[in-house]
This record gives sequence, C-alpha cells and structure tokens, in this order.
Amino acid sequence: MATFNRTTLEEVLKKRFFYTPSFQIYGAVAGFYDYGPPGCALQANIIDLWRRHFILEEDMLEMDGSIMTPAEVLKTSGHVDKFTDWMVKDSLKTSDIYRADHLIKQELETRLEGDKQARAKLDGNVQSEKSKKKNDKSQMVKLEDSVKAEYEDIITRISNYNGVEIGEVIRKYNIKSPETGNDLTEPEEFNLMFESSIGPTGHQKGYLRPETAQGQFLNFKRFLEFNNDKMPFASASIGRSFRNEISPRSGLIRVREFTMAEIEHYVDPNNKTHSRFNEVKDIKLRLVPRSVQSEGKMDPIEMAIGEAVEKKIVDNETLGYFLARTYLFLTKLGIKPDRLRFRQHMPNEMAHYACDCWDADIHNSYGWIECVGCADRSAYDLTVHSNRTKEKLVVRENLAEPMIYDKTVLEINKKVFGPKLRQNSKTVEDYLTSLNEEQLEALKKALEDGNGTTKVPGTDGNQYEITSEYLTIKRQTFTEHVREYTPNVIEPSFGIGRILYSLIEHVYWTRKDDEQRSVLSFPPRVAPFKCLLVPLSNNPAFTDLVDELAKRIRKLSIAIKVDDSSNSIGRRYARNDELGTPFAITIDFQSVNDRTITLRERDSTKQIRENIDTILQVLKDLLEESTTWEKVMETYPTFTQQELD
Amino acid sequence: MATFNRTTLEEVLKKRFFYTPSFQIYGAVAGFYDYGPPGCALQANIIDLWRRHFILEEDMLEMDGSIMTPAEVLKTSGHVDKFTDWMVKDSLKTSDIYRADHLIKQELETRLEGDKQARAKLDGNVQSEKSKKKNDKSQMVKLEDSVKAEYEDIITRISNYNGVEIGEVIRKYNIKSPETGNDLTEPEEFNLMFESSIGPTGHQKGYLRPETAQGQFLNFKRFLEFNNDKMPFASASIGRSFRNEISPRSGLIRVREFTMAEIEHYVDPNNKTHSRFNEVKDIKLRLVPRSVQSEGKMDPIEMAIGEAVEKKIVDNETLGYFLARTYLFLTKLGIKPDRLRFRQHMPNEMAHYACDCWDADIHNSYGWIECVGCADRSAYDLTVHSNRTKEKLVVRENLAEPMIYDKTVLEINKKVFGPKLRQNSKTVEDYLTSLNEEQLEALKKALEDGNGTTKVPGTDGNQYEITSEYLTIKRQTFTEHVREYTPNVIEPSFGIGRILYSLIEHVYWTRKDDEQRSVLSFPPRVAPFKCLLVPLSNNPAFTDLVDELAKRIRKLSIAIKVDDSSNSIGRRYARNDELGTPFAITIDFQSVNDRTITLRERDSTKQIRENIDTILQVLKDLLEESTTWEKVMETYPTFTQQELD
Repeated sequence: MATFNRTTLEEVLKKRFFYTPSFQIYGAVAGFYDYGPPGCALQANIIDLWRRHFILEEDMLEMDGSIMTPAEVLKTSGHVDKFTDWMVKDSLKTSDIYRADHLIKQELETRLEGDKQARAKLDGNVQSEKSKKKNDKSQMVKLEDSVKAEYEDIITRISNYNGVEIGEVIRKYNIKSPETGNDLTEPEEFNLMFESSIGPTGHQKGYLRPETAQGQFLNFKRFLEFNNDKMPFASASIGRSFRNEISPRSGLIRVREFTMAEIEHYVDPNNKTHSRFNEVKDIKLRLVPRSVQSEGKMDPIEMAIGEAVEKKIVDNETLGYFLARTYLFLTKLGIKPDRLRFRQHMPNEMAHYACDCWDADIHNSYGWIECVGCADRSAYDLTVHSNRTKEKLVVRENLAEPMIYDKTVLEINKKVFGPKLRQNSKTVEDYLTSLNEEQLEALKKALEDGNGTTKVPGTDGNQYEITSEYLTIKRQTFTEHVREYTPNVIEPSFGIGRILYSLIEHVYWTRKDDEQRSVLSFPPRVAPFKCLLVPLSNNPAFTDLVDELAKRIRKLSIAIKVDDSSNSIGRRYARNDELGTPFAITIDFQSVNDRTITLRERDSTKQIRENIDTILQVLKDLLEESTTWEKVMETYPTFTQQELD
Repeated sequence: MATFNRTTLEEVLKKRFFYTPSFQIYGAVAGFYDYGPPGCALQANIIDLWRRHFILEEDMLEMDGSIMTPAEVLKTSGHVDKFTDWMVKDSLKTSDIYRADHLIKQELETRLEGDKQARAKLDGNVQSEKSKKKNDKSQMVKLEDSVKAEYEDIITRISNYNGVEIGEVIRKYNIKSPETGNDLTEPEEFNLMFESSIGPTGHQKGYLRPETAQGQFLNFKRFLEFNNDKMPFASASIGRSFRNEISPRSGLIRVREFTMAEIEHYVDPNNKTHSRFNEVKDIKLRLVPRSVQSEGKMDPIEMAIGEAVEKKIVDNETLGYFLARTYLFLTKLGIKPDRLRFRQHMPNEMAHYACDCWDADIHNSYGWIECVGCADRSAYDLTVHSNRTKEKLVVRENLAEPMIYDKTVLEINKKVFGPKLRQNSKTVEDYLTSLNEEQLEALKKALEDGNGTTKVPGTDGNQYEITSEYLTIKRQTFTEHVREYTPNVIEPSFGIGRILYSLIEHVYWTRKDDEQRSVLSFPPRVAPFKCLLVPLSNNPAFTDLVDELAKRIRKLSIAIKVDDSSNSIGRRYARNDELGTPFAITIDFQSVNDRTITLRERDSTKQIRENIDTILQVLKDLLEESTTWEKVMETYPTFTQQELD
C-alpha cells in the first residue's frame, strides 16, 4: 500500500462531493463546511449507529433542544466567563489574528524539526533541500539540548497556559507573526461563543450553544419525572453546536459549526457502579493515564477496563463502562483499534468542576485528535443552575430504613429578636441563619463565655450585640424517610465531524496495481450508498431491467446509486470505489436473456453471478450482516468474465 | 367524541414531555421549544418518512449545510433587504412591541366577534356574559354593515400591506396598544434574521440562515456534476433555520428556531413536465385557486391534479407533481384529508421572483396554517448569485441539431481605439460592450448619419467622440452545438414543527366513557414508541421474562417502552395511550407458566393472547404494515380476561 497522502485523499473527497467549504462561490469562510450527498449519508449512518448503540440499546431519553440560548443560562454555566481562547495579533497588520497556543506550538515544532535536520546532518544523514515537504518552513539550526527540552515541555503544556504565561513564552523565545515577521501583541482573551440578540428590543442577549449539555441539564426535572423518578438514567441529544474559533484550519478537525452527540448520565454520587459493567469488563483498551503523561510519555498501556477501574486508574464503573462502550462504537464504525487511545486529562487541564476525564483520541494525519470526551462533571451544572434559578434539581429517594441523626440547630426567639434589634434584625438574622453546625456551636460557646452576651456581625458587616434571650442553639434529633441529593453527571460527548473525517482516513487506500485508484473501504453499515446498480453500457436494451431492479432494491430500503452514464464499466466501478460503495450489481446482455446478474464486492473486486432473486437475497444478508463476503465466495462460484457485448 | 379543548391537549403534551418551552427554569423565552423523548422520536419518525418518501424514492441529492451564513450571501438573495415584518410599539411603554399585521387582525377579529354577539342579542339569542370564553375580550358593539365589510377585507389582505398602509389602518380604525390602551408608534420594518459576527475581528457579519435553500443554490454546480450533468434533478436538505419573530405566540406554530425540510428541484425553463406525473395525475386535491380567493371566498374545489394542470390552474406538471406528492406524504403521516387544502398565493403575496406558489394549509385550532410552501422560484436565486460571484450557475446541454442564428456584434479596432482615446479608452469600451443588439444597430446608424463620426457616453457619464475607424458593427452567423441555460427551481418547503403539531391535533381524542382518558392515535409508522411492554405488576416473578422480551424486541429494531412501575395496569395503559403507543404486550402469571403473552391495540383496546413467537411475528407484521389489526382480529381469538393475580 502506498504511503498516505492527504492531498490525494482530499482531491477524491472533493471530486466525489463528500464535503466542501461552505459558500465557496463567495470565497468561503474558514471553519464552515457543507456535506454533499455521500458525506451527508455517511454522517446520517454514523448518527444512526450512535442512536442504536447508545440511545436504543441503553434506553436513554433523547431530546432535541434550542440552539439559541439566553445569555443568563451560559453565564451561570460558566461559559460567558471561561469559554475562551487566547489570541495574539500582528502588531502592525492587526487583521492577522492567531490563536496563541496553536501559533506557539507550530513555531516551536518547526524549530524542533530544524534541529532534527541539523542533528541528522551532523550525523552524516544529509537530507537535500529538495526532499523536504513543500510546506516545511524549518531551517536547519541545531538547538542546545536544554532549549530542546524546554520546547518539548512547552508544547505539551501550552494549552493550559494563561495569558501572562503565553506572553512570557512569546517574548522569551522571540516568536513573531508568521506571515510578516512583525512583533505580536499581548495575548487577549476571546470568547468562543457566537453572540446574537433575541427579539426586537435588542436588549436580550443570546449565544449559539457551544454544547448540547446545558439544554439537557435545564430539563433534568422533566427527564426524571418521565423516567418514573428512577435512577440512574441518561438523557442524550444529537445536534448542531457552534464555536467561533479564532483562526480555524485543519479541515473538518477544527470547525466553527459542528454536529455533536452528547449523553448526560445521572448517577447517585455515592454509587457510581453500573449494572451492565460486567458485560464490558474484559474489553481491553489502550489507556494513557496521568501517571504515564506526567513522565512526559504518551505510550498507551493495554488493559482490560475491569482492571483499570479496580486499580482506580479509571475513577468509577460508570465512567469505565462508557469508555468501553465508546470503544465498541468507534471500532464498529470502522475506526482502527491501533489508532485509538484513551487519554486521561491532567488535573490542570480539566474543567474545574470535573473529577475525572478521559478523551478518546483517534490518530489521523493531523496527529492524535480528541474525538470523544468522557468527563465526570460531578454535580456542578445541576448545582449552579439550581442555585441561580431556585429550582430544585434533585433526586428524592425513599429510604427503606429511615435515616436518624442529630444536628445542631438554631431557633430564633421572634418575640425578643425583632423588638430588640429593630431595623437591624434582618441583617443579623440573615447572618445567623447562614451559620453551619460548627459555627453554631462556636456561637453557643461564645454566649456561654460572655455570660449570655456576645457580638455578631450582620450581613452588612457591622457588629451587633445579642443575648441568649434572642435565640436557642441546641442539638436535635431528625428522622428522615427521604434522602435528597443532586446527582452527578457522567458525560460522553462525541464530535461527529472529527470521527467522520478520521474514519475516512482509516478506510482509505489505493489499489496495488494503480495508485490513482482510490478506495474507501467503509463497513457496509456506514457506507453512504450500499449498492451500485450499473448496466454494462448505456444501451437502451438494459433500461427496463435497471428500472425494475432499482425499484425492487429501493423497496428493500437499501440505498442504491444507479450509474447509467456512458463511461466505461471500469471507470464506473472506480468511481464507486471512491464513494466507498461496498457492492455493485451489474446488468449485461446475458441478464436480459436469462435474468442472471452479477454481484461485485468492492475490496476484492471479486464477483458472483446468480439469478436476480438469489443475488438480492445475498445482498440483503450481507447488509444485515447475517453473512459475510467470505461465506458468499464459499457458497457461490466466482464469476470472472463479464461479457462485454 | 367530546369537542376539542386545546388546554386539555396541551396539558397531556406537557405531562408526557412531548415538548416544553426551552429554558423554562429561567422563565423561558418566547418562540423556543425543546422536544422531550416522545416529541423527539415523533419528529425523527416524520423526518425519516419524509426522507424515504422524497429523497430515497426520487433519488434526490441530500446535503447538510452551514447555518451561519455570511451577510453577503443573504444580501444577494434579498433577505437582508426584504426579509422583514412591520412592528409597532406602545408609544409610552416602548418595551411592548407587536407585530403590526397580527395586532390589527386580532383587534378587528375581536370587534367582529363583538358585532356578532350584538347582532345575536338583537335577534333574541342572548348569550350570557358567563358563557363567554375566558380570553374573549370582545364587547357587544354592533358595527355598521359597511364597517364590518371593511374589517373583513382588511383581515384578508393585511399581511400584504406596507408600512404606510398599516399606519393608515391603525389611525383610521383607532387601534391602540392592547395591554395599556396607549397610542401605537408608526410601523417600523424589522429584519427577521438573527445577526452575529464571525471570527475574532468583529468585522465579518453573519446571519443564521432563514431557510436551507440558499446553501443548496450555492452548491448547484457540484450537485449537477455529482448527477453526471443530467437534468432535471433535485437537491434536498433537512435542518434547523431561524427567524427572529417580533412577538411569537401560538406554541409550535410560530417559533424562532425550527426544523425544515426543503427540496430544490431544478428544471429546464422550457420544459416543466415531470416524468412521473402520470403516476399521480388522478389524485384529487382540495384546491383554493386565485380565482376563488379573488371573490373573497376560501371554499376549496376538489379536482384531480391532472385536470388542474391541464386547465392551467396549477402552472406546470412539476409543480403539480409535488403538490400531489405532498398530499400523499401528509396523509400517510396521519393528517386528515378533509383538514388539508392547497391554497394558491395571490400575485401580490408571492415573492417578486416567484411565478406560481401554492401552500399546503393544514387546519388546526389556530386556524388554517401554512405547513408546506410549494413555489416556482424561477431562475431568480441562481441568477442573482451568479451575477454577484461571476460563477456560472448554468446547465450546458449538447444539442442534437446545432442552433444557427445571426447576431449583430461589435468588434473594437484595438490599434486605433486605445491610442486615440488614451486614458478614456476603458470607460468608452465598457460602455460599448454593454450595448445590446438594438443599441448597436442604433450606434451603427448614428455613425453613418454622422459621416463616420458620433458621440457616445463613457461609463463615467462624459461624452466622447468616436469614429468608424475605432470599431466595426456587423451581422455575423453563429453555430452553437451547446445550449446554455439557467434552470428554474421548484421548491417544496416543509415546516416540520407545524406539521408535527397539526398531526397531534388530528390524532387526538378522548375515550367515550371517560373524557379524562386522552388518546393520540398516531399511525404506527410515526408513533414515538411502537410497543409498550408491561408486567401485570411489579412482582419480581416477571423480571426475567420482561428482560428477555425487551432484548428480543429491541433486536427487531422496534422502539419499545418498558413500564414496570407500581401503577395499576389500567393507569399504565392510559399513560401510553397519551404517548400514542399503538401496541402493548402484557406479561402476567400465566405468561411465566406457559409463555403466552397478550397484545393490545391502542384504539380498540382489544387484545389477543398467543405464544411469544406468534405475538412477536404479529407485532412485526403490523409495524411493517404487511397486516392490519382488523386482519389480526379475524385470525386470532379475542382475549378478554386478564388474570389479575
């Protein structure tokens, strides 16, 4: 097989209209793509498989929510303040704007490449300038070993640097604007949400959602009710989200508008076991835990998920369950297991509320790309929305055994408290009722020590004298029949476009005999079209049979593509290899006479010839995966010679 | 059957989480809705049927495009200038903003209602104040007959009034701000697109697309190429669009964010026949053509679409074909044919480029609601985008017979033209090359009349002297083997949310014996869940069999809902009647012993009892529509007595 060439692949994808930059006749806008018929069908099949694999099989509650979101919701969730990237501008040509971490990473990688070349030259492995890749801007400059180590360290950690740290790196390592060589401005924070305004007043600010998760959290109460108040359960949503990336390149990997599929699985924080964990515990995953990364390495450890949870490498069963299910989903799609790893987030790169987070990284020509994030968001989101809206977002669990416990409580003696403190009574009361048990005990002691008198602050900050007549602090026994808790959320979040692009790279190859002949070996279940239907030529003798077959195959709900153009049969096969169509039915002159047709398999290019009913049954069985092409080849004789006239 | 009560229905829909206002715990924002599990599944099933009915059956080219759209695209399409509604504000409380046409219509309808009551009273049919509907604000005031007629006329035509006309109506008929009684401000135009900004500069304006159509037009060249340059063909897209409505009420009927499904069918402007028109020509539609409406009536004429096209009531076969296909789609969903009509647009309500347009209106409790628009957009969109971008958006047709014709052409004598006119040569040349044949003939004559000299303007407006030495104007014969044309576009455009809501109203009823028992009689193909699986009680004896059956049914790709809550079996059936689940499988003690189970049909509540394999086969056949419940009842004995313990 030839070495991978992205340019060649991209030409195939463009020619076959898998996807195209949006608004291209207007010059296109970075970060926006339209999916043409094969890309659109591929995406739909990936989503369909996702829905079966997760929503149907696990009985999740799917919703379809609004994209436009009032600012207040995203203020509460933290996105208005924290969903940002750092940007730097060219100090003279300020329309050149760069995402700071990407720019630094790229520049340092270029310098490291130059260093590598210089070292190779010193070792006598001279590389001629001509053999360098077209876009290789590196210059052969050997670096000090210590500088090289610094660069490598920065590259690993740059995405977690703050503005000050980024500014320091830029100055210290003399990083310039790449196109002009000018100085760069100080880093500025840029919020990645698209902003808009709802309604005619112009005063209601809205953002396009950056994730579907918040819409699910806001409906938590309704989901729980719909689920007959049973826990645990999951909601899920598939839909468009938006991120106003500073300077997106990298094709489908970094876009401003994308389809994502997210699961929010709600669990009891005291019990993160999973009832079906047993079914997946032996599945082996390639894990890159924190311990490996903190040694500066990225080598995966292959380990059964059961063992990983047992050893506390993965925090809990539910998180582990979803990692394994994610593995099964991705490999079922056609992602190659050896190009898939699960990387744990380092403590400093997790959202502040998360307690554990693993990415499913898929390897493609852009590197190891995060395609699925699997985070334990703890009770963060439900808590902040509940605090903000005063709406209880909790689970009430009837306890089999009532819970009996003692608690220090405060009772205010209203008859004395109000009249004595007069206009200050509210500020003092507010302070007192905010005290926890420990503080109440301390206050009780202070009153005892002061012979029944002490001073306390009000919520206004002033000091007020109170006496033990004003209130009583005592231990009291409580009996509770219901336990109320805010569930924790385990969130597997899938970037469909990144998965789709990685899949294309994984199934792409060129035929041994001819590098111009590209093939996309999609598994039949995700292939955009399942079967090509071709008459041998555009001779009108074939028309009726083509129509008859097209109708019959469509009736079986099989997505076919009829190609009755005047191109040679070989050219039409080649075109459908590029579309990834797994099977082809060919109609020739013999077909018209004896109603036999041939079935060709894409990867092997082998064919069988049988009567129409048999072929259609074989096709149906292949697509329903109740047989394989190998078995078909064992059952039916291989057909070799297409009669060309 | 009880009379329809929207409030009761809405309570059922809310309780069963079909949909809910988005961000409700934040107080909600008008015009945004989230679909919960049953609404989401219903929507997915409607879309799935749409995709099969249109895209798969007609081999359309589906795409999935960007929502965020650069301003320039929508400036060209006319949306920046013309996609507006008129709004009026309360002159004192300016945060009260109303969509002017809706406000006027509502006010005049209220006055007409008051008039009706007053007339009834005069006739002796006294209606007590108490019997009036809760929200009926009408006052019994009899109107002059002429005023009544004026009101009725305005109501019919108001949606086409411009700002001046609206202002006149408000003043003439003394229409006030409904909440405060204050004066209203002069009408202002409000653009209905949500505006945003792309990228970090803040200078690239973008809008959320108001329709998916423009994204399809921009890709026309790629679609044509993908279709092997064959005409006619259609592209299609299903996705979210946005309209920043001024003051949306009316639930799912008028929303700010919605899912639409649009087809752009490209045809030769000289040949709008359709190859499959014959298949639909006998389908009878309830048409409300212009001729009926211009008499002030809305009574539909029932007519075969073949006849309607023949009589030129519907402009062409392709448009007629899509009206019939739309009828088939909607009735297959469960829309009642007698609550569906096709209304032709009046010339003044069509977009200026359209040459014919028909709406599929579905009747529901909000009135006759436009749910599908079927417009002939002519060559408008492709032409304006092509003019703006200089990208040819045309079809090239190889002519069987070459086309030979004469044409007056201009040839500039560069040797003289440039040197003589010097720095002015460009302005003059630009003027001359812009002339059409007639103008060229006139110029030729002017040169002859002026003895080889005349004056022409430049594109700068100044006059320049030219002589016949500068140029030659002559008749020339052309032979063309290729015909180039801009296709016309027939666009059926479906509002999925409006169809979904109308469908719910059409299938909603309450049981004769108990008005509290609501039923949604969705056809199985669109029902959110296909089958309910219930154990007789939550006795643990049933658990294994429930799990076994759930697994087997899910394996058949049938969406089931298991309800093993502790509610009575009757209550659980009732709950699923409200979800519109067409079938229910019940497991009782007998099932555990002899592995027979019962199958219940929602509408009749009748049951059969057979062994598991038979019931699952019957269920599968029912869902695949290879049998009907009537046939099942003929084949198997009715089961009447559930053993309750």
